[in-house]
Parts: sequence; C-alpha cells; structure tokens
Amino acid sequence: MRLLPKAKNLFFLILQKFLKGVWGKLFSKSFPQHNHTMDYQISDRMKSMKGSAIREIFKYAADPSVISLAGGNPAPELFPNEALADFAAKFLSEQPVLSLQYGVTEGYTPLRDAIRERLARVEGIGTPDDEVIVVSGGQQGIELATKCLINEGDTVIVEEPSFIGATNAFRSYNAHLAGVPVEEDGMNLEALERVIAENKNVKMIYTIPTFQNPMGVTMSVEKRRALYEIAKKHGILILEDNPYGELTFDGTKVPTIKSMDTEGIVLYSGSFSKILAPGLRLGFLCANKAIIQRVVIGKQISDVHTAMLPQLLAHAYMTNYDMDALIAQMRANYAHKCHTMLSAMEQYFPADVFYTRPRGGLFIWCDLGHGLDTGALAKKAVEKKVVFVPGSTFMVNMEQPTSTLRLNYSTMTDEKIVEGIKRLGEVFSDALK
Amino acid sequence: MRLLPKAKNLFFLILQKFLKGVWGKLFSKSFPQHNHTMDYQISDRMKSMKGSAIREIFKYAADPSVISLAGGNPAPELFPNEALADFAAKFLSEQPVLSLQYGVTEGYTPLRDAIRERLARVEGIGTPDDEVIVVSGGQQGIELATKCLINEGDTVIVEEPSFIGATNAFRSYNAHLAGVPVEEDGMNLEALERVIAENKNVKMIYTIPTFQNPMGVTMSVEKRRALYEIAKKHGILILEDNPYGELTFDGTKVPTIKSMDTEGIVLYSGSFSKILAPGLRLGFLCANKAIIQRVVIGKQISDVHTAMLPQLLAHAYMTNYDMDALIAQMRANYAHKCHTMLSAMEQYFPADVFYTRPRGGLFIWCDLGHGLDTGALAKKAVEKKVVFVPGSTFMVNMEQPTSTLRLNYSTMTDEKIVEGIKRLGEVFSDALK
Repeated sequence: MRLLPKAKNLFFLILQKFLKGVWGKLFSKSFPQHNHTMDYQISDRMKSMKGSAIREIFKYAADPSVISLAGGNPAPELFPNEALADFAAKFLSEQPVLSLQYGVTEGYTPLRDAIRERLARVEGIGTPDDEVIVVSGGQQGIELATKCLINEGDTVIVEEPSFIGATNAFRSYNAHLAGVPVEEDGMNLEALERVIAENKNVKMIYTIPTFQNPMGVTMSVEKRRALYEIAKKHGILILEDNPYGELTFDGTKVPTIKSMDTEGIVLYSGSFSKILAPGLRLGFLCANKAIIQRVVIGKQISDVHTAMLPQLLAHAYMTNYDMDALIAQMRANYAHKCHTMLSAMEQYFPADVFYTRPRGGLFIWCDLGHGLDTGALAKKAVEKKVVFVPGSTFMVNMEQPTSTLRLNYSTMTDEKIVEGIKRLGEVFSDALK
Repeated sequence: MRLLPKAKNLFFLILQKFLKGVWGKLFSKSFPQHNHTMDYQISDRMKSMKGSAIREIFKYAADPSVISLAGGNPAPELFPNEALADFAAKFLSEQPVLSLQYGVTEGYTPLRDAIRERLARVEGIGTPDDEVIVVSGGQQGIELATKCLINEGDTVIVEEPSFIGATNAFRSYNAHLAGVPVEEDGMNLEALERVIAENKNVKMIYTIPTFQNPMGVTMSVEKRRALYEIAKKHGILILEDNPYGELTFDGTKVPTIKSMDTEGIVLYSGSFSKILAPGLRLGFLCANKAIIQRVVIGKQISDVHTAMLPQLLAHAYMTNYDMDALIAQMRANYAHKCHTMLSAMEQYFPADVFYTRPRGGLFIWCDLGHGLDTGALAKKAVEKKVVFVPGSTFMVNMEQPTSTLRLNYSTMTDEKIVEGIKRLGEVFSDALK
C-alpha cells in the first residue's frame, strides 16, 4: 500500500513545523491548513524541498500597505508597455499563426539572432561552437542545465550567499552543494581551490559575477580569469548567471567569464526580466552546441517551447526600439534608488552595521553582527510592515541563523525606501539594546 | 578530468548513429554536424534521451510544400486572434504591472477560478481537497508531476501506444516504463493487472482516456470505473491527461476518471492548446492540495510562473466570450476533417489496412500489418512530401519497428488531406507489392 492514510501524516507534520518557524506568519497566509487523508509519497529529490521564502514573501508583500525591500522586482514604471501593446495587437491581428500556433523548441529564430547579436556586441560572447536557446526565464535555463548535466550526488559549487532559485534548482536534483565565501571582489579563490580538493564529482561552479545576488558585489576581472583557469584545470563547467550585468550605474563593465571561454566550458544564462519585463518569462542560455542540443531535448520535455507572444514582443522591441536607451533609464533609476537607500541606511541604521555599496544591480547586503538572527528580526519587521530577506535564505545550510540580510531598492518609491529603512533601523537598534 | 577531449567523442558517435537512422533525413536538416573538442558528461537521466521525432518532423513540416499529417497542431483558422489582439493591447496599455511584473507561481487567481468553474461544470471535477495550478502547457504539468512524485526506477504504467511527450518526461527521470495495450474501448485491464503484479514500485498509471493520442479511441465508462478501482486497490496514482476531451464530434462525453475520484488519487492534466491556442503555452493541473503544493515548489524552480500575458488573455476570453461556442466550431471542423480523411483512406489505402474511427480529438491510428516497418515507409513518404509519425515513436521500446502509424487531420486543408492520403496510399500499396 503506497498511499498510507494516517491521522497525522508526515507531510502535514513537516508543514506544521515549517509554519511554526521563522516564516510562519507569512506561510500561514498562503498555505491554509486543510485536512487530507492520503499520505502521498513525494519523490526523494523533492520531498525535502521548501518553497522559496522570497516567493512567499512576495505574496505577503502584495499588501499595498507593506513596504517590500524583499523582492527582486524591476521598477514597473520603466516597462515599455505602450510599445508592447502596439506590437501585441499587431502580431495577434496580422500574424495569428506565428503568434498562436506551436513554435520550435529552440525559440523564435529572429529572437535568437537578435540575442546572439546583442551578446556579441555588449558582452563579447559567441564562438562558432556556441548556440543560443530561448528559455522561459533565466530560472528555466538554470533548471534545464542542472537536469541535463548534474547527477544525484554530484557537487555543484556555489557562492555563499547565492541566488535561492539556482541553489533550489541544484537541490531539486539532489546535487551536493558546496559553498565558497564571496568577498567584495568576488569568490574567495583559495577557498574555491580547497572546496574543489575536498569534494567529489565537482561538476559545475555556479556564479553571478556581476552585481551578485544577494550581495551586490562584482567579481574583479583578475578573479574571473583565475576562476576560469581553475575550472579549466579541473575540467569543471562554469554556469555564469548574468541577469543584472547591464544594470551598471556608471556604465563601466567587467568582461563576462563567457567572453574568455576558449574551451567551451562556460554556460551563460541571461534574462529579459531585468532589462525588459519579468512577467514575459523570457531568458536564454548560451553554451557549446553539444550542451544546448541536450538542453533543447530537456526543454521539449519541460514546456515544449516558450510562449510565442513574449518572444515576438521582445524581438520587436529589440529591433524597433533603442534597448540601450531603455537600459540607460533603468541604470539611472536604480543608481538613484540605491543612493537613496544607502543614504537612509547611513542615517537610520546602527553605526556598526556592515553593508555593501553596489555599483549596479538591485541588491544591498547587510551584516548586523553581534550574533543577531535576522530570521527572528524579519518577524519583528513584518509587524512594522516592512519585509526583507534574511541571509539564511541564500546559504547552503538554510537552517542556520545568520546576522545577514538582503535589501532591494528597485521596486519601492524613494519615500517608501526611506520610511522602510527608518523602520528597519528601529528594529535593528532595538535588537542591539 | 571530467571533460575528455577525444578525436571522436561519444556524443558525436551517438549523434552519427542517430543520423543514419530512420530520421536521418529529418535530423540532418536540423542538427548540422559541427566540430567540438569537449566530451561533455551528460547526466544519467538525460544521456539516452532523444528529441521527440514529432518535434523534429514539425521543423521539416514547416516547408509549405510538405503535407504534414504528423503534428498535433490545432486548426489555426479557429484561433480567436482578433479578440485576443484587443485584450492584449488593453491589458498592456491599461494594466502594465499586472501584465509585465512577476506573478505568483500558482497562476493568475482569476484564471484559476475560471478553470475551476469550467472543470466543475464541464467535467464534474473538483472537491474541497483539490487544487488547481496553472502551468506552461499540459506538458509542464506532466513533467512537474513526474519530478515531484516519481523516483528513479519507479514504474510508470503507460498505455501502449502513448503520447511521447509524457513517456519522454517519465524517461527523463529514469522511471521504468511498463506498457499496457490499448483496445477500442481503452486499456486492456487484464493486462494492466498483470503489469501491476509483475513490476515493482508501481507509482503511477498514465492514461489519455478520451480521444487517445495516438489512437483516437476512448475508454468506456465501465473501464474507467474499473481502472479507478484497480488503482485504488493497489495504492497507485492515476495521471489522467485530457487535452482532447472537449473535442467530441457528436457532443457525447464520457465522465472523466477525476470525476470519480473520492480518494484523491487522480491527477488531472488539462490544456488550452487544443481549445484556444498552443502558442500561449497554457495548461493546468488539478489534484489533491498536498500534491499541488509540491508541484508549486517544482514550478518555482522550473520557470517561477507562467507568462502573465497568456494567462490574462485566456481568462479574458473565457469570461468575455462564449468558449463553448468556440469549441463547438472546433468540433464541427475536426469532425468534418476526420470524415474527409477517413473517406480518402477508404478510397486510397490498401483494403486490409486497419484504422480507428475516432469520435473526437485529432488522430487516426493505422496498422498496415504484413510485418511492414512504418519507420522505413516514413522515409519513402518524405520523398513524396508527406509526413506522418511511425508507431514506434509511441511505444515503450522505440527501437522496435512496427507496422503502425499515426495520422493527424486537424492542420491541413481538405484538399491536402485527400492528396496526402492518396500519396500515402501509393507508398503503402508499393510496400505491399
């Protein structure tokens, strides 16, 4: 008997435990308790997975009276929605088959060409052995790369802290995660060498080298070169995730690791979420053709192809409008908001709080020190109607309390940013008393 | 050393072998040979996966001079594209945040409500313990259910023949596939009982009970009840896939298995691909809340959420237009086209070819008998610019030649259907000489 009816089944117990935890308040809103009699056997790969706390906070943050410094949402005022409205009406009206019939798994060919052109021009990426596949958001590129390349028990090295969407993708295939600390100029490479030596079957290094999520720091070009050489020496793939790279405040750019890739060992994950609009669910993966051929098969199985309308809209925008000008607006907007947040932090945060000073991207990373647990503080902040993401979310071991947290400045207005930081300053000052 | 450079690497050898195979002609068009020096280690779950022959044929069939009886594309003349054009322009123009910002993983709430309402009204589906998640096409629902519920080596029982998108999803998680023959009134239940007894860890039975893909047959209500009882007795889940159920030619409907589900053991997969438009990539999964909660976590990892615009368009169409009237048009259209194809088959096919006479859906299944190999015949048909899908594609063992094939009548015009069948009749008659 595979479906055991029990009065209190295991899943329910785990859920209950979870509800009592740090995020109890948030989760109890989104997952109301209910009775069910079956004890479903969840697969080994998924049974210990928890939902992303960020996605759950996102639901909570939908309350307009809450100041959300938690998400990674781009500023909606910069969505080129009127242009997209015109394109959508035109495509659906004039090209119904293109817009609504099945498409090919690799993606709409003109969009792939436009992505290739932009990657070459802006990031120095692309060799004759590379191929591009359109995916349903950067997240899907990471998930498919994992499915196609990582066996259960293989080690994936991740920056610590790192993006939970990626670490959860690795976890969901029962990969072994090994963390490497991140410094102001990127991964600690001595620690990386040590982690490689100490772990078996190291298959991939996952990095967000530019405006890292959650730290906001950027890996130096020297470290990028050294990282590439280390990976090459050990025969390890690099998954370079670069959703924020174009959001540089002062226009300076550090070369992508993929642009140094003579051996075909770098998979480059890109996204339209932060430079056009995330609701389109549009990203791409660029890697050696042999890898992309496998990813295409994985994508056939996953969702056949990415929805046509988002692909058509992105291509039309890229080829009819000045995408660089749109991104320039975003850069200025985020630079201003980041400055606003940093100024408020200087004013309202306790004096010895450490925080990063990003030169691009969407996030500031803080460390309160003093053995504080930001998981517990997040509950107190929720009472003051401010949400942020505690640092433990981004760690290999998510159960261990940390004194770190991530702040986002891209979504809220200046006034809300200042008010949110002021309230957080009160919470943190109280905790330090 | 994980990335072994070899003069002739394994992947290339496999690809070459593949290129020489039945689908060589088709594959050589889409996967040009190239040189690469790395021997990438593909994961155990994906290394033996091949792309869906259907998807590859689909690329070939893009040649307008080819008569494609291969795909499962709905008739594009019935896409309500003008209505969708108006909605798209309105949403993007008036509700940019809703249309373009991140959404929740479960799906756009009003769309989930509309799906629930339709499921209850049309299919008799839905208990207080059931939940609905919007997915990026029916395919994603199947993939996520597999990821969340099936361990490597678990047995998934499939109808034989069955939908390759589903069988490949099971294969991609290293499930063990066990086939059960399909009769004119659905699965052979004696064979099902035998297969359950003979296989270990039988976790799920995958069935397309209505207008089955590829056979076009429908499981009788008696067999549905008996199948449900067998699954219940053995504690096995049922994944009921019903993308074609609404496309009944004469309006008669057989109750869904999910409508009989008092125990919460049936997962119901639905799709908008055949009743609205496939390019939207929109489907849904309805199952017990405890299962859907896991699927939500899987979907967070897979693509965060389904693109907003397709969700908004489907919801707007469902609530502002008469969806039943649209589907009635499709029913009449497909009934006519099916009749056209069957009439042509009577006229042009060798007399003793067996074929099904569907009462709905998109497909006719043929068996040429006489030990013929439809894989080889597909190559001859391609020379005459007609494509169909050989039966081996739908089998557990895809390597074994069969005398069966699938024909689709929904995409081509009447003239092309007749001409295509005429040419196929010539190919088959030649083979029987």
